Amino acid sequence: MNATPPAPEQTDPATAGVTAAHPGVTELFALLAYGEVAAFYRLTDEARMAPNLRGRINMAAMAAAEMNHYEVLRDALERRGVDVVPAMTKYASALENYHRLTTPSTWLEALVKTYVGDALAADFYLEIADALPDEVADVVRAVLSETGHSQFVVAEVRAAVTASDRQRHRLALWSRRLLGEAITQAQFVLADHDELVDLVMSSGEGLTQMTEFFDRLQRTHAARMQELGLA
Amino acid sequence: MNATPPAPEQTDPATAGVTAAHPGVTELFALLAYGEVAAFYRLTDEARMAPNLRGRINMAAMAAAEMNHYEVLRDALERRGVDVVPAMTKYASALENYHRLTTPSTWLEALVKTYVGDALAADFYLEIADALPDEVADVVRAVLSETGHSQFVVAEVRAAVTASDRQRHRLALWSRRLLGEAITQAQFVLADHDELVDLVMSSGEGLTQMTEFFDRLQRTHAARMQELGLA
Repeated sequence: MNATPPAPEQTDPATAGVTAAHPGVTELFALLAYGEVAAFYRLTDEARMAPNLRGRINMAAMAAAEMNHYEVLRDALERRGVDVVPAMTKYASALENYHRLTTPSTWLEALVKTYVGDALAADFYLEIADALPDEVADVVRAVLSETGHSQFVVAEVRAAVTASDRQRHRLALWSRRLLGEAITQAQFVLADHDELVDLVMSSGEGLTQMTEFFDRLQRTHAARMQELGLA
Repeated sequence: MNATPPAPEQTDPATAGVTAAHPGVTELFALLAYGEVAAFYRLTDEARMAPNLRGRINMAAMAAAEMNHYEVLRDALERRGVDVVPAMTKYASALENYHRLTTPSTWLEALVKTYVGDALAADFYLEIADALPDEVADVVRAVLSETGHSQFVVAEVRAAVTASDRQRHRLALWSRRLLGEAITQAQFVLADHDELVDLVMSSGEGLTQMTEFFDRLQRTHAARMQELGLA
């Protein structure tokens, strides 16, 4: 309805940089919001495999943290005049596909998925926060400061893979598959949503930065596999 | 292992009153803690019946609030030197039985259960907070201040029962059944746990107070049914 052209400072390539008014910011928040809700339901589903009450409680606490992140993003969207539910629906298929293609078949697979997923989300939040204007970065950092609930995974996975080479090989493959599916779905999302590509491209060095971003994700993923005793 | 008799001020009927050292306080916190975890998993299960994403998000937000309550109770137990998981396990059967016997078969039944359950929990927290020493009451009130996430239910249930007398009758019966099962399970818990009975009996007027407590629960339940358009 609003045919007013964007303010010149947003489109002038000389001044570059992203402003909080960039339409990609709304899309980014909507994508992340759906990611949190999808993670909530998947964690609680996968927690059914827990061998005991303590495991189920740890997973429930992580799931609850996802909803706290969701609320930060929903409030940020509301401040931008955007209703979160319709805005996030368009990202449902990519996130549901990721979870459908990475349904764990054992409690250990569920634990590794939780840890890897939480870590990838944290990396992702940190990367984008650096590239965004302060006002937007503050929202992203508020969400990030809430991650790190998955430390309980490390002891349990390390114990299992120390006791069994077969488990170590299985879980190492599983962990690589998780990263691969995450990258695949991230690329589908970018291919379908020009505003998001534009947001990443205009914040810093563009395409080079995007390649480096995926490289960095792979390196930090390798570090996490080592923490879990999988590499 | 500890054969020391309780300190005289705890057992002297003349001074009455409950101290924070009463063993029933630990049992109460453990019972409530299991209640929060059970509610978390049931809400997320029942949310699967939601007709849309907004409904699923509302249920997820309520479930996340239950885990925040759980954490308040766990911390309070830790301050008392009690490990929450073993302490709460003995209350599993009563709470799981309540949920098993009140499994909703429609989304509207799930909404009513959420609302009634949240309200009963709030009543219960408020009643016991008044009867407890300040230090303990503060914990209970911190949990209570977090309830009230179920207001989203009212509009949806009222609309459905205004449109259909059949729905109103069905849901009114359902709502009475929820209260009945909650009272039945509460009585089983009291019958099995003398420390809890002693806690309630010694805080105020004892048995009379307990009867009045259940009477008040029924009255506030009737008020809630009216809010929902069921009475």
